[in-house]
Amino acid sequence: MQNFIFHNPAKIIFGHDQISSIGNEIPGDKTVMIVYGGGSVNRNGTLKKVRDSLKNHTVYEFGGVQANPHYETLMEAVALVKDKGVNFLLAVGGGSVIDGTKFVAAAACYDGDAWDIVKSYGSVVKRALPVGCVLTIAATGSEMNNVAVVTKAETKDKLFFASPYVMPQFSVLEPELTFTLPPNQTANGVVDAFVHVLEQYVTYPVNAKVQDRLAEGLLNTLKEEGPKVLTDTEDYDARANIMWAATMALNGLLSTGTPADWASHLIGQEITGLYGLDHARTLAVMIPAIWKYALADKKQKLAQYGERVWDIPASDTETMALQAIDATVAFFETMGVKTRLSDYGLGDDIIPAVTNKLKEHGHVALGEHANITTEKVEEILKLAL
Amino acid sequence: MQNFIFHNPAKIIFGHDQISSIGNEIPGDKTVMIVYGGGSVNRNGTLKKVRDSLKNHTVYEFGGVQANPHYETLMEAVALVKDKGVNFLLAVGGGSVIDGTKFVAAAACYDGDAWDIVKSYGSVVKRALPVGCVLTIAATGSEMNNVAVVTKAETKDKLFFASPYVMPQFSVLEPELTFTLPPNQTANGVVDAFVHVLEQYVTYPVNAKVQDRLAEGLLNTLKEEGPKVLTDTEDYDARANIMWAATMALNGLLSTGTPADWASHLIGQEITGLYGLDHARTLAVMIPAIWKYALADKKQKLAQYGERVWDIPASDTETMALQAIDATVAFFETMGVKTRLSDYGLGDDIIPAVTNKLKEHGHVALGEHANITTEKVEEILKLAL
Repeated sequence: MQNFIFHNPAKIIFGHDQISSIGNEIPGDKTVMIVYGGGSVNRNGTLKKVRDSLKNHTVYEFGGVQANPHYETLMEAVALVKDKGVNFLLAVGGGSVIDGTKFVAAAACYDGDAWDIVKSYGSVVKRALPVGCVLTIAATGSEMNNVAVVTKAETKDKLFFASPYVMPQFSVLEPELTFTLPPNQTANGVVDAFVHVLEQYVTYPVNAKVQDRLAEGLLNTLKEEGPKVLTDTEDYDARANIMWAATMALNGLLSTGTPADWASHLIGQEITGLYGLDHARTLAVMIPAIWKYALADKKQKLAQYGERVWDIPASDTETMALQAIDATVAFFETMGVKTRLSDYGLGDDIIPAVTNKLKEHGHVALGEHANITTEKVEEILKLAL
Repeated sequence: MQNFIFHNPAKIIFGHDQISSIGNEIPGDKTVMIVYGGGSVNRNGTLKKVRDSLKNHTVYEFGGVQANPHYETLMEAVALVKDKGVNFLLAVGGGSVIDGTKFVAAAACYDGDAWDIVKSYGSVVKRALPVGCVLTIAATGSEMNNVAVVTKAETKDKLFFASPYVMPQFSVLEPELTFTLPPNQTANGVVDAFVHVLEQYVTYPVNAKVQDRLAEGLLNTLKEEGPKVLTDTEDYDARANIMWAATMALNGLLSTGTPADWASHLIGQEITGLYGLDHARTLAVMIPAIWKYALADKKQKLAQYGERVWDIPASDTETMALQAIDATVAFFETMGVKTRLSDYGLGDDIIPAVTNKLKEHGHVALGEHANITTEKVEEILKLAL
C-alpha cells in the first residue's frame, strides 16, 4: 500500500424527504443562490421543495447550466453572485450543475482571469464560497469530492480542476429524485460510476485489500442494481444502492494508497469537448480499448476483477483478463450504452483532433504508469473505432 | 436502506514516516499537551519523533493513561491542561489513550461535574479542545470517530460517550508503529475490529449492498491478514491492511442506513469494568453467545456472512448460520483469543453483578431489535460460560 492522505469533510444527508433539512444546514444570515440546469427540477417539484426549505433565507436563482457546463454560462452566474452579494451556493442537479457551481464558488472569490482556475488545475484557488448540493442524478460523485469539470465552449476545451475549497459542505441525496430520469441518463450514471471505480482499481496490484474489496463491492452493486432500474424506474432500494455506490466511487476512499489510471477520462474529455458525446459514453468506448492496449500492464487486476465481479473461472491470467473486458463491454451494452466510436458516428478522422487537444492540454503521458504517449493514444483510438 | 447522515471530517495521514508532518498540522501558536500511556512510546522512540516534529511548539506531556482509561487519571490531565493553558491535545497511543484524550478535551471545556459528560452520553458537550492522534494499535477505530469509552475506577463503571466536538482533527497512522506490539495486543486489536464490523453487519437484511460488501471486505481482510502478523510481526502490508480495516470498521460508513446491534459491547463493557477482562476478549466471549441466543433474528445475515467470508456452502439458512458461528469462534481461537468466560476464570457468579450494572446504566433493551432484556442477558451469559 502506498502512503496516502484522506480527508473528506462533506456531510451526506441521505434518504426519503431530506430536502426539508436544507434550511437548517445553511446559516440564516446567508444570501443563497440556487443553481440549476434545464428546468426539470422546476417541472418535477424539486425546486419548490428547496424554496420551501429556504423560505427564511434571502434567495436568488440561476438556471440554465448545461451538461458539460460552459465557462461562458458560469461567468454569468459569477456576475449575479457579485451583483447580489450572494455568499452561499446551492447546486440542485446532477454532476454538471454541481461542477458548475463549484467553479462559480471559486471564480466569485478570484481576482484574476477566472479561466486560470482551470488552467492551474485549481492551484490558484485560495478561497471559495461555501457550496451545498441537492443531487438529482447518481453518477459523477461530485457531491462528495473537490473536483469539477468545466468546458470553454468557444475553444472546445473540457478540463478539470480540484481544490479543497470547493468541497461541498453538505449534499442531500434523495434516491426518489432519480425516479423520473430518462433511461439514457440513468444508464449514463451507472456507467460513469462503474468506470470511476475501474479507473482506480484496474491498474496493478499493491496489496491494498480494503480498497480492492470496496471497489469490487461497488462494481457488484452497480452490476446488479443498474439493469433493475432500467425496467423498474421506481425501485427505491436499487436507486438508493446505485446512488450511494456512485458517491462512494469517487469520494477518495478508493484512491487511498492505490495507483489510479484516468486515461479514459482524459481522452474522453477531449471527445466530449470536441464532439459533444455524453461523458459516460466516451468512457464506455475508451476503457475497453485502453485495456486491450495495456493488457500486459493490467492483466493481473483485470483477472482479479473478472473473478470477483463477473464470476470468471480461474484459468491463465491473460485469458481471464480478456474475458473480463468482454464482460464489461457486454454490461455497458446491456445498459444501452454503446462501446465503439462508430456507434456514435465518429471515425478515424477524430484522431488528430483528439491527440492535438491532449497535447495542447499537456496530457502527453497518461495511465497509472504515465506511459501512454500521444502516439499510443492514436493506437488506442483505432482500437475504439 | 434506512435514512442516514454521514459526516466524518477527520483527516487521515497514513503510511511510512508520517509523524514528521504533525508539526504542520497543528497551528504554531497552539500550546500542545501530548497524552500517552504506559511508556512503550517512550522506549520505542515514537515519542521522540513526535517531540521532534513539535520542536517549534510549546509542549507539555501527560503519561500514565491506563487501558480502559480511568476518569480519575484523566481528571489529573484536565487539571494540567487548565494550569498550563493547553489548547491542543495530541494523543499518542491506542484506543484507550485516544478515548481518554477525547474525554480530557471535552472535560477541559465543561464547567459542571465532568462525569456528566459520560452520564449524558455526551449530550452536554458543547465544545472541546481540538484533538490530534498518533495511532499505535490497530483496533478501536477511535482515531476516526467521535466516540470514547471511559472507566470510573471508584465505582467500576465503564461507559461510552459521543460528541462531534471530540472528532480528531487529524490522525497519523504508521503501520510500522504496530510492529513491536505484544502478540496478545495484536490479536486483541484484530478481534476488536472484526467484532466492530459484525456488530453493524450481523443484524437483519435491509438491502444495503454497498455497506454489506464493505463489511464483508473488511472481515475478509482481517481474516486473511490477522494470522499473518502473529508469526511475521513486521509484515508491513499485512499491518497496513489491518490498520486501515480497523479504522474503516468504525468510522461511520458501515452504519450508513443499516441497523446495528452493539449488545456484545454493552455487556462486554460491564465485564471489563467489573473484572478487568480485556475489551476484545469480552467481545470474543459475548458475540457467539448472543448469536446462538438470537439465531432466529440473525440467521439470514449470519448465513450471508458465512457464505461470503467463510466460504460455507449453500444449504438451509439455519445450518449455514450455525456454521458461521463455529467459524468465527475458530478464528478467534486461532488468533489466541479464548471464547468462553470459563477460559478467563469467570463463572456464573458474575451474572447478577453484570446484569445489575446493565440495569444501573439503563441498558435494559439491547440489540438491533431492542428485545434483549435483562432476563435474556442472564440466559446469554449462561451460554457464554
